[in-house]
Amino acid sequence: MSGNSVKSVRVGIIGGGFMARTHAAAARAAGAHVAAVASSSPERTRQAAAAFGVDPAESVRQLIEAVDVVHITSPNALHAEHALAALEAGKHVVCEKPLATDPATAAELAAAAEEAGVVATVPFVYRFHPMARQARAHAAASGLGRLLTVRGAYLQDWMLDPQETNWRVDAAAGGPSRAFGDIGSHLVDLTEFIAGERIVRLNAATSRAFAERDSTAVETEDAAVLTVETASGAVGSLMVSQVNAGRKNALTLELAGTDSSVEFVQERPDELWIGGASSSRILSRDAAVLAPDAARLCTVPAGHPMGYVDAFAAFARDTYAAIAGDAPDGLPTFDDGARANRLTAAVLDSAASGVWVDTRD
Amino acid sequence: MSGNSVKSVRVGIIGGGFMARTHAAAARAAGAHVAAVASSSPERTRQAAAAFGVDPAESVRQLIEAVDVVHITSPNALHAEHALAALEAGKHVVCEKPLATDPATAAELAAAAEEAGVVATVPFVYRFHPMARQARAHAAASGLGRLLTVRGAYLQDWMLDPQETNWRVDAAAGGPSRAFGDIGSHLVDLTEFIAGERIVRLNAATSRAFAERDSTAVETEDAAVLTVETASGAVGSLMVSQVNAGRKNALTLELAGTDSSVEFVQERPDELWIGGASSSRILSRDAAVLAPDAARLCTVPAGHPMGYVDAFAAFARDTYAAIAGDAPDGLPTFDDGARANRLTAAVLDSAASGVWVDTRD
Amino acid sequence: MSGNSVKSVRVGIIGGGFMARTHAAAARAAGAHVAAVASSSPERTRQAAAAFGVDPAESVRQLIEAVDVVHITSPNALHAEHALAALEAGKHVVCEKPLATDPATAAELAAAAEEAGVVATVPFVYRFHPMARQARAHAAASGLGRLLTVRGAYLQDWMLDPQETNWRVDAAAGGPSRAFGDIGSHLVDLTEFIAGERIVRLNAATSRAFAERDSTAVETEDAAVLTVETASGAVGSLMVSQVNAGRKNALTLELAGTDSSVEFVQERPDELWIGGASSSRILSRDAAVLAPDAARLCTVPAGHPMGYVDAFAAFARDTYAAIAGDAPDGLPTFDDGARANRLTAAVLDSAASGVWVDTRD
Amino acid sequence: MSGNSVKSVRVGIIGGGFMARTHAAAARAAGAHVAAVASSSPERTRQAAAAFGVDPAESVRQLIEAVDVVHITSPNALHAEHALAALEAGKHVVCEKPLATDPATAAELAAAAEEAGVVATVPFVYRFHPMARQARAHAAASGLGRLLTVRGAYLQDWMLDPQETNWRVDAAAGGPSRAFGDIGSHLVDLTEFIAGERIVRLNAATSRAFAERDSTAVETEDAAVLTVETASGAVGSLMVSQVNAGRKNALTLELAGTDSSVEFVQERPDELWIGGASSSRILSRDAAVLAPDAARLCTVPAGHPMGYVDAFAAFARDTYAAIAGDAPDGLPTFDDGARANRLTAAVLDSAASGVWVDTRD
Repeated sequence: MSGNSVKSVRVGIIGGGFMARTHAAAARAAGAHVAAVASSSPERTRQAAAAFGVDPAESVRQLIEAVDVVHITSPNALHAEHALAALEAGKHVVCEKPLATDPATAAELAAAAEEAGVVATVPFVYRFHPMARQARAHAAASGLGRLLTVRGAYLQDWMLDPQETNWRVDAAAGGPSRAFGDIGSHLVDLTEFIAGERIVRLNAATSRAFAERDSTAVETEDAAVLTVETASGAVGSLMVSQVNAGRKNALTLELAGTDSSVEFVQERPDELWIGGASSSRILSRDAAVLAPDAARLCTVPAGHPMGYVDAFAAFARDTYAAIAGDAPDGLPTFDDGARANRLTAAVLDSAASGVWVDTRD
Repeated sequence: MSGNSVKSVRVGIIGGGFMARTHAAAARAAGAHVAAVASSSPERTRQAAAAFGVDPAESVRQLIEAVDVVHITSPNALHAEHALAALEAGKHVVCEKPLATDPATAAELAAAAEEAGVVATVPFVYRFHPMARQARAHAAASGLGRLLTVRGAYLQDWMLDPQETNWRVDAAAGGPSRAFGDIGSHLVDLTEFIAGERIVRLNAATSRAFAERDSTAVETEDAAVLTVETASGAVGSLMVSQVNAGRKNALTLELAGTDSSVEFVQERPDELWIGGASSSRILSRDAAVLAPDAARLCTVPAGHPMGYVDAFAAFARDTYAAIAGDAPDGLPTFDDGARANRLTAAVLDSAASGVWVDTRD
Repeated sequence: MSGNSVKSVRVGIIGGGFMARTHAAAARAAGAHVAAVASSSPERTRQAAAAFGVDPAESVRQLIEAVDVVHITSPNALHAEHALAALEAGKHVVCEKPLATDPATAAELAAAAEEAGVVATVPFVYRFHPMARQARAHAAASGLGRLLTVRGAYLQDWMLDPQETNWRVDAAAGGPSRAFGDIGSHLVDLTEFIAGERIVRLNAATSRAFAERDSTAVETEDAAVLTVETASGAVGSLMVSQVNAGRKNALTLELAGTDSSVEFVQERPDELWIGGASSSRILSRDAAVLAPDAARLCTVPAGHPMGYVDAFAAFARDTYAAIAGDAPDGLPTFDDGARANRLTAAVLDSAASGVWVDTRD
Repeated sequence: MSGNSVKSVRVGIIGGGFMARTHAAAARAAGAHVAAVASSSPERTRQAAAAFGVDPAESVRQLIEAVDVVHITSPNALHAEHALAALEAGKHVVCEKPLATDPATAAELAAAAEEAGVVATVPFVYRFHPMARQARAHAAASGLGRLLTVRGAYLQDWMLDPQETNWRVDAAAGGPSRAFGDIGSHLVDLTEFIAGERIVRLNAATSRAFAERDSTAVETEDAAVLTVETASGAVGSLMVSQVNAGRKNALTLELAGTDSSVEFVQERPDELWIGGASSSRILSRDAAVLAPDAARLCTVPAGHPMGYVDAFAAFARDTYAAIAGDAPDGLPTFDDGARANRLTAAVLDSAASGVWVDTRD
């Protein structure tokens, strides 16, 4: 779970909320040194520093200078500015998605990271559940046969309270997409990651649960439904909602091919269902029986649940390993972040126009 | 489970396959007298008569004359002819879906049934699972609040074998839609039945798993994905497939509203999940705690599974009760059958054109 | 589901309650003719006759004379008298368990049935779920390897209401054991049926939830816990309760051997879990992939749930097939009924004495 | 997840295997400083030090002197010696269970810890799943009503391979009980913890799957089945196995009372089933709706799985908080460890004698 090799990585965290705390815990679990935090004001920085047990930075600029890798967890609209500052300083970057609130800026960030020659990653952490890797390995080894259909959903209910509001609801701070940008981006990233192929066109509809939240007009969607087509011709059905009563973080994804199906359920991440015509299998997360890229992510024995923090820590470990010169498989980079921005924009475009939108790169 | 009141109903069955057998069993479980069967040839009629333990009819015409209610389970392309013959003879009719292979003919049948003044029903039997009724009662009593999203699927895998073929694959015999017409029709019927409102527009894509089956070109779809919008503005995501490895008859349907969600899973029909923000409930099929229209369908105590045959028998019982003059709630009529034809046509239209199709009546 | 071969079987039913109704429905689904019913009084007989749509018998004696097979669903304390009367008349008998309220009388009934040379069965209907047969076939084919452990439970909650009472609570009418005699008997029958070997000793404790029900002292147990050992040396843990809140009819049974495990769950009877060290399988009830004795019980396609009524009908079909001269595998006879009485007595003996009780025949 | 308050705690770890690694990760996640490790030889110490990223200790004695709290993960037979050395040095101790290989020594350790006035805990970490706490809070608030029955199991399959062997199989190194001492101890600890009452007597049987493993005679049990009675008169059924094919770490526990039931499943630790006669609830791990002692252990939002490492870290945090002077509720101490030794001895006694054994303190 740690080791001397990554001890020298000094991590700085921009932001002071829940995600900042999660990044700090993950960095530590990965054996890094969390050196500093900078939030939106001196006061919030002090609070975060005390809460996380790290030193407060004087400013974002000072933080960037003091560390090896900058974790950006600020509101969406500030991601680009913070990421560019870090890249310009030649620092490695971990930036929360969405990279930017529009796809053009996100693409610029991906290009800037490429040019800077640093490690620049986006925490699509669901990729780091061993059984998501196993699903991907199954597909890559032609275990599915030819892909026929995709069915996925990412459902939450925390926005069901009409009084619930936060910066994400405000398009200026969070970007024009909320539910899709926030969680749909995970769903399409995981779909393309496991399938090993791209969504090439989509048709979408979106909806808002409430015209107003806390007396402010809501401009961003609470739910989105999509039909998609993949590069190999499979069709798919995806749904995203933050207003689905009783669903807490229900990311489910099933890929069905001519030979078998796989279903991954994020809330039960230690199992993989492999559907077959004559019988179906339940594969437990057990390093002894998994593909190498899945087995390497198992840090506790089968039956001892691994969870969200474990996946986040694995993401951090792989990021730091890349910084150390390794090339870990499946690391989500700024290119993947920019891809999510592109797909989010396509969802909004299609929902507005009613027509299918091409999503090829 | 039976009673003298329906003993006098004489049932005739057109067809000799699995569905014919199921209709016969259901009719008997409902207390009716299965008087005759007529299949596609004298030989097949004799075989069916022997298999079901009923008398063979000399012809469809003779069968129609000899009974009170005609159950039609012939290939899809013959439904209309058989149904019209029965209606013209003034007989009650139970006709398998699709009523016809095009929506115009289906609408004519519905009009003919109306004019004949007889009972004319379509076995959308999933309506007769008590917990599907409970979901509907929950929605009708405003238990969901305002409907926000719908998510459904109907997945099978029996067409995954490329050698598998049957009359349904042939558009001439089965109609231009296969997967959607066959099982998607159940899914949209159940959606509108439980939601208590109509799908007003949809966008769809379809796919074929194999260009040929048994050396014959395949013209009908194996899978369909849909986005829908309902009358009250909810958005939905539906998927239908007969090539989803490991899924046998996986009809699942979730309706989510501002107050709660309900999920019904046909393969576990004795449970209903009711999702809530603070906790979710699992309701067991127990007459003591269900809404009246659900409780009346419970024929065995909680925990003693009810299944497909029970649902089919309940459909038959309600049909015969209607013939006897009752007005059982939720009986699927030719109007509902015609509605399914309309929605099926809309799916094919949208899949061909790529645009949203209006599905209001 | 029916057939001319069994049409001539005339069924008479003693009793007028829920079980009588279930027997009538099962007999009909099996294609028999339900000819008469006799309940505890002329008035109750008339009510039952009307409810079931059959003719009322003048007396138990007259009913026995008028039919080929007598189904006995009277209170437990009357089973022996009614069964003996039917056997003496040379009639086939289906008798609800327990055959008698003491093991000696049950053994006498089994001997009497043997001597009479008739078919005498006990509705241990859970044997007739296809997946229970599949589990048995798996064990019989050495699929489990050497049996190591057994874990089972049969849990209900309908006696949780302290006001709930009925003839079963009264030891004079229902016998000295209630929960175990009523549902534990099913559990041990199914255990020995699937395992293919006997429980050779057991140790038990019992408990009563309430000292009184409806102002009457309760003499019979609400729950029982057992440790058992089987003929081959496996150890097991069984629990039976009628006061387990939230459990409706939760019969679960897992057999684990050196090669694999199987788990059957009565409330989800269409699945069988087969546990393996490297992965576990979920087998769907699909005639195409099951052992012959399981496949023959499949009356509807995979994914179309079969339930309690289907299992009961299959039991009736096999009973009538035996009457017609067949020798269907796994038919539960009076010997099996007497075995259940023996095990029930052993549970009460062990609970009273605290010591292990030998249960070998 | 951390904070300055515990930064000063210096942790030393005795042992170099998987459990040592887990303790190190948990200590770090709890914000402590892992200062040193000492394993069974200088070579193994060096390896562990490198693997965990900590300094190697010269000896156990030197390690004890250098730290504030000693974590003991050596083979069972060495626990007592190491724990006593730490206690004599006035250091806080975290000792893996079993505290000792016999109950008398374990009781002496508990007394020694009491006398030393230090914090001495045992990682019964399943207590630290929020939903296990919620179950306990439900019981403590009389949510269950009067306890009627207990049903539990702890099933694994890693010893199913007859070649599998390790020091735990050897009674000299691991103690006379293997399966029960290793995992049964967790099950009875959690049972008494959630129920809030003691098991007062038990009857047990044990079994060995193989007479030999790797050519060595096996003296310790692979499985145990128990019937128990609790202080308030509830009866219970427990089973423990390390040879149950397909079960990885399947600790399940259900407590049923006159008002409701609760079921906790360790492999799905983020849910709690609350059974009721009219409907049952599924409670998600969501701090907003849980009892305070459960809510305080939630470190990520609902739907983001917490797992084994999270529970272990919570145990470490509470241990260090106790060291800092707090009195966190539900901390498992040496008294609890000694209790587990007592119950393990009772299981072996009863299995040998066949009689019920009193387990009151």
